[in-house]
Amino acid sequence: MSGRTSDALRDKVAIIGMGCTRFGVLQDKSFAEQGLEAVNEALADAGIEKERIEAAWLGTFEPNIGGSFPGYAGDFVADILGMPGLPVTRVTNYCATGMDALRNAAFAVAAGMYDVVLVLGNEKMRDVASRDSLIRQVVTTGHPIVQKGLTAPGLFALMARRHMETFGTTREDLALVAVKNHYNGNRHPKAMFHKEITVDDVLNAPMISEPLGLYDCTPTSDGAAAAILCRADLAPQLTDEYILIEAIEMATVTGHRYGRRSESLIGFEATQIAAQRAYAVAGIDDPLAAIDVAEVHDCFTITEILNYEDLGFVPKGEGAHFIREGRSSLEGDLPVNPSGGLKCFGHPIGASGVRMTYVIYEQLLGRAGATQVPTERNGRGLVHNLGGPGSVCVVGLYHRP
Amino acid sequence: MSGRTSDALRDKVAIIGMGCTRFGVLQDKSFAEQGLEAVNEALADAGIEKERIEAAWLGTFEPNIGGSFPGYAGDFVADILGMPGLPVTRVTNYCATGMDALRNAAFAVAAGMYDVVLVLGNEKMRDVASRDSLIRQVVTTGHPIVQKGLTAPGLFALMARRHMETFGTTREDLALVAVKNHYNGNRHPKAMFHKEITVDDVLNAPMISEPLGLYDCTPTSDGAAAAILCRADLAPQLTDEYILIEAIEMATVTGHRYGRRSESLIGFEATQIAAQRAYAVAGIDDPLAAIDVAEVHDCFTITEILNYEDLGFVPKGEGAHFIREGRSSLEGDLPVNPSGGLKCFGHPIGASGVRMTYVIYEQLLGRAGATQVPTERNGRGLVHNLGGPGSVCVVGLYHRP
Repeated sequence: MSGRTSDALRDKVAIIGMGCTRFGVLQDKSFAEQGLEAVNEALADAGIEKERIEAAWLGTFEPNIGGSFPGYAGDFVADILGMPGLPVTRVTNYCATGMDALRNAAFAVAAGMYDVVLVLGNEKMRDVASRDSLIRQVVTTGHPIVQKGLTAPGLFALMARRHMETFGTTREDLALVAVKNHYNGNRHPKAMFHKEITVDDVLNAPMISEPLGLYDCTPTSDGAAAAILCRADLAPQLTDEYILIEAIEMATVTGHRYGRRSESLIGFEATQIAAQRAYAVAGIDDPLAAIDVAEVHDCFTITEILNYEDLGFVPKGEGAHFIREGRSSLEGDLPVNPSGGLKCFGHPIGASGVRMTYVIYEQLLGRAGATQVPTERNGRGLVHNLGGPGSVCVVGLYHRP
Repeated sequence: MSGRTSDALRDKVAIIGMGCTRFGVLQDKSFAEQGLEAVNEALADAGIEKERIEAAWLGTFEPNIGGSFPGYAGDFVADILGMPGLPVTRVTNYCATGMDALRNAAFAVAAGMYDVVLVLGNEKMRDVASRDSLIRQVVTTGHPIVQKGLTAPGLFALMARRHMETFGTTREDLALVAVKNHYNGNRHPKAMFHKEITVDDVLNAPMISEPLGLYDCTPTSDGAAAAILCRADLAPQLTDEYILIEAIEMATVTGHRYGRRSESLIGFEATQIAAQRAYAVAGIDDPLAAIDVAEVHDCFTITEILNYEDLGFVPKGEGAHFIREGRSSLEGDLPVNPSGGLKCFGHPIGASGVRMTYVIYEQLLGRAGATQVPTERNGRGLVHNLGGPGSVCVVGLYHRP
């Protein structure tokens, strides 16, 4: 296994402010406007002027929507902030783009290169189909994998079917994930969907890719989220309330592109590796006991069940028990996706990882309102961002100082 | 002016191995094959096994050529190396993509996160027109700026015209840049063009965008370049010959996107800011005296003349004198683009910044063969990578230990 665990990041970097737009079909906001809204909210939250920002990282995956260039490179961020000279890097890493942008920003702060930096995850997916989207790949280019039907719903449906056949997971189990996340999302002011649903709603919804129906899938959406990072030792001078980055670990696995996939289809090695690396840094043997709240990548209901297992909350094969027993609910012993997750926020690709970090930030600072869960036990939250056909994963651990 | 200078990177990170494909129309190599060729050459140069690589950064700007996904995210690098688990970030920042990938990799090493990392700049532009290319922008999307003729040749032609009117620079001066770079490129084994030209060749070539003719423009090409970075204190244990990163500074300026460009069209603020930051880190007051060799972004002949001025080699307006007097030639007091530059390598976007670093690396280690220039005075070289409509610039300073 390639890569290395290091505690070089541990408690070196603080998150002192965050902002997040409401997610949804934001026809009334341009890409620039929604990005600026998230940044301004983060600055206000941190209580600092924009002039304190010394560098920025932009996470955007498919900026070329609507025929213009915003988001194609970092100058977009300097533009909307009116900050000539600002160094801005654009990071893109499939659906894990947001967390990888945050990871690179954290490296620069930990290196002592900058004291205060900005991370912006920004994506618009609902204006028109992106020219890079999977749909267009099929139509215009004859993409060799996508043409065979291996779209995202197609891939995750295979994994759902395999999990059902191997471990007895049922469509009702999958439905329980959607029901939980819609319950939570209805309580979060920034979610796209404010609508509770029932197991019957899920089972009777139009089929997308057997066994995944409409409510088993996350929608696409527009949205932006921003974070202000600073050197941990400076944080108390700048703000009263902040959280610390304990670890951000990434793993990229091989074999997906050319049909050489070696995995069993019952889990994501990238998640397993990234999580084990993060746990090693934090000294965590029992994630279920050590983590108070988790925001995980639930692009499909089966993904959340696989995540329970791959993140080590339960042994492989027992993910369905975790949702059946209500252990991931707001009242459970490890609440997962208290915000409603991708299921209720949609998944504007580059924004999601930063938005998920925002959710854990508000949970750890006790600002999560109707979705607040207890975090007294450890003061620690986990963020999990999965990308590509499971080929890249970033796991972040955060805690109160 | 936004941003901050820091010496946090200074001499913390070494480059212990580099590789570079020949640049050109590489119909016989896939994107993966050319990338792997550069990486394998870098590994052999460093004398290390691939298993020493702990993380990687991929610089690719427009990977979606030919209808497939390679290069769209970092998993591509783990795939071609056969290294499951390897964390790989894709960075993209217009034409400065390669240097910004290297910059982010250096931050991670300086932070102590990894000991040995890989940077790969890789781009294929000659198979088919990229779906994101400016040409397709015009055809398929009605891009608001590009449609008005503000293509890259159009923009740089405006700047050439302004420089000519303001400072008396002539088409012959521009031609001298092309003649010099073709002379140099003819001596570099990895250049795309091995052909010397004359001033008359340049003046009589087909006009592209007045006053820029065919030989005033860099071609597109395919190519890849790779670097192995490691902690500076580890470098002597791993290899006998290496160079140190003294500074990598980036600046992103504003106002280009919406016609709010504030610059005079006689220079690039992004270059001026990035250079001043890098010089401040290295304690350089007189760049002409302190730098032995420079590889700069000569996307057009006028750009190299602007670079002389913006990098402080001569005062603003005197760039043409610098080329007229032969001061940037292989025998000059500050040789610029000893490799032949973009003019002779072409400009595969994400690869160029790493390729330019390769050129300075071989110069500083005395391996530049027929293009070798003296570097005894300071043992220091400069790399300059410009992106977008001049909206982003990275300047790197490197020296022998």
